[in-house]
Amino acid sequence: MAVTIKDVAKVARVSPSTVSRVIADNPRISEETKKRVREAMIELGYHPNFQARSLAVKSTQSIGIIMPNSATKVLENPFFPEVLRGISQVAREDRYGIYLSTGATQEEIFEEVVQMVQGRRVDGIILLYSKTNDTVMNYLLEEDFPFTVIGRPYNNAERITHVDNDNIYATKQVTKYLIDKGHKRITFIGLNPEVVFTIDRMEGYKQALKEAGIPFNEQLVVQESSLKEGGVEVAKEFLLANEPSTALVVTDDFVAIELMSYAESLNIRVPEDISIISFNNIMLTNHMRPPLTSVDIDIFQLGLEAASCLIEKIKNPTILPKRLTIPATMIERKSCASLK
Amino acid sequence: MAVTIKDVAKVARVSPSTVSRVIADNPRISEETKKRVREAMIELGYHPNFQARSLAVKSTQSIGIIMPNSATKVLENPFFPEVLRGISQVAREDRYGIYLSTGATQEEIFEEVVQMVQGRRVDGIILLYSKTNDTVMNYLLEEDFPFTVIGRPYNNAERITHVDNDNIYATKQVTKYLIDKGHKRITFIGLNPEVVFTIDRMEGYKQALKEAGIPFNEQLVVQESSLKEGGVEVAKEFLLANEPSTALVVTDDFVAIELMSYAESLNIRVPEDISIISFNNIMLTNHMRPPLTSVDIDIFQLGLEAASCLIEKIKNPTILPKRLTIPATMIERKSCASLK
Repeated sequence: MAVTIKDVAKVARVSPSTVSRVIADNPRISEETKKRVREAMIELGYHPNFQARSLAVKSTQSIGIIMPNSATKVLENPFFPEVLRGISQVAREDRYGIYLSTGATQEEIFEEVVQMVQGRRVDGIILLYSKTNDTVMNYLLEEDFPFTVIGRPYNNAERITHVDNDNIYATKQVTKYLIDKGHKRITFIGLNPEVVFTIDRMEGYKQALKEAGIPFNEQLVVQESSLKEGGVEVAKEFLLANEPSTALVVTDDFVAIELMSYAESLNIRVPEDISIISFNNIMLTNHMRPPLTSVDIDIFQLGLEAASCLIEKIKNPTILPKRLTIPATMIERKSCASLK
Repeated sequence: MAVTIKDVAKVARVSPSTVSRVIADNPRISEETKKRVREAMIELGYHPNFQARSLAVKSTQSIGIIMPNSATKVLENPFFPEVLRGISQVAREDRYGIYLSTGATQEEIFEEVVQMVQGRRVDGIILLYSKTNDTVMNYLLEEDFPFTVIGRPYNNAERITHVDNDNIYATKQVTKYLIDKGHKRITFIGLNPEVVFTIDRMEGYKQALKEAGIPFNEQLVVQESSLKEGGVEVAKEFLLANEPSTALVVTDDFVAIELMSYAESLNIRVPEDISIISFNNIMLTNHMRPPLTSVDIDIFQLGLEAASCLIEKIKNPTILPKRLTIPATMIERKSCASLK
């Protein structure tokens, strides 16, 4: 069993916080007490891991986590707590703390990153998103600072260690699943086109249509942002169109759940009138009426691998960049109907 | 509009990252470039807030968040992302970063706190829990380090700024609500008795019974931990007892949701056979079948106020300790039946 601060405190007949202060060489502690505590540490073979390491290699034993928007907004979506869970598991094992960004604008986030890097606040950074034109990613590359990305970097992907799903393949599969059920008018609902996973998922959607000989129709692509701003009015437009879609491919469960409530308020039945399939497989999907078919992208594992790769890179800066692909699996529930 | 690093970069004809490095006085930047950038900063009236502040007052512009267990475990419960959302809102406004603990054991958490305090990693700390015997809280008090608590400190509450609900009153109200519906055998399901809000909620439960002239029965108190270890078998014991309870007061929605699925598997109907009321009002409660009656404790506000009080304390260390009470409101849904 590992020796703890408490054990040292007991042997040295001081409080655990005194032991901690001795470790930190706090001037408030007398030399006599310091000597007694240090003897107890040697006697018991106690190693104050973090401080020793931190002093020896100027490590901060912290990793920075950069979110795409303010934590206040981002943490509403269960994706982020889940990815943090995966990251923390690795961080805890290696005794790293986690430093979270809180900025909302591109500018604020950029300044936070600069602060983390220039102020040597963290040993490395995980970006929880990837956009087409990302100043943060360029900056970290330029600084040669250890970082990993969840998602596919739009540029320089071969120089950046990243963890991603095969979003093109996964979306092609779910679109094909709907086509096999007889759907031809399928609407694609994604985040804005600067978000790389939206680009990849749309590509998968297009590939499936092409293979089935269904022409791609620009009108059947809806941006989540227009839905957020327009709410039920925008949803009405495509749910109650002259020739309405019979199925939706939605890139985020949260948007799908919102759409289900819009559909309900418009007396449109899921799946009888419209089939819905989405991504992330958050817990809520299983409790919806009907339960929602969703792609499990293994968010926990995305976080865990991104953190493992980062810590590996911190320990060995010359390690080669790599790409890890986490399997994505469709969890079939009751939100898709067959038209045949 | 605020002047940004980008504006400075444009005027000085350098990249934004060069501006950042000038701010950080990086030796890789030539004196000539530094001069040009600094002139641009003066010309535009740009103030690099965080660095200036950090250097001037030795501030870290970070607050530490201490969780009761590993983040990997804790973040499964939507309480924590929600409380982080509230904290981040304030942190962002005041340009603080957030430093999360990742430790799982008391010992690991204690070491992390020592590291934060002695290593001056953070300007202040928020404890997201309160236990009867908390070495962390004692340590922070002893060190006179700025901190606030979400929950009621069991000892020294008058010396510690904390943000809490009136848990005694809220639980008394919901228990009375069940009694008014004709329930007499009401089981109380709480976390372990070291957690202060469990103590307070049990007290409220007892007070309601007492006022109604119903004797308190030790047998009708179940610890969540026994339920977690024993699963459906333990649930069976009280759901299928000789003289079963007709209602449950559960201190956490997540446990209530688990119990609902146990009940379903045992062919016990909610609310016809058993009424359930719980705490936190997480999003899922509204999507359950039946929707779950739950107490909205305003988690976001708990986080927001704890962060506001902490930053106030960091800026003015002589400020008096205070207690803030966030209102709790029962959200009535469909999980409680009348026996009358």
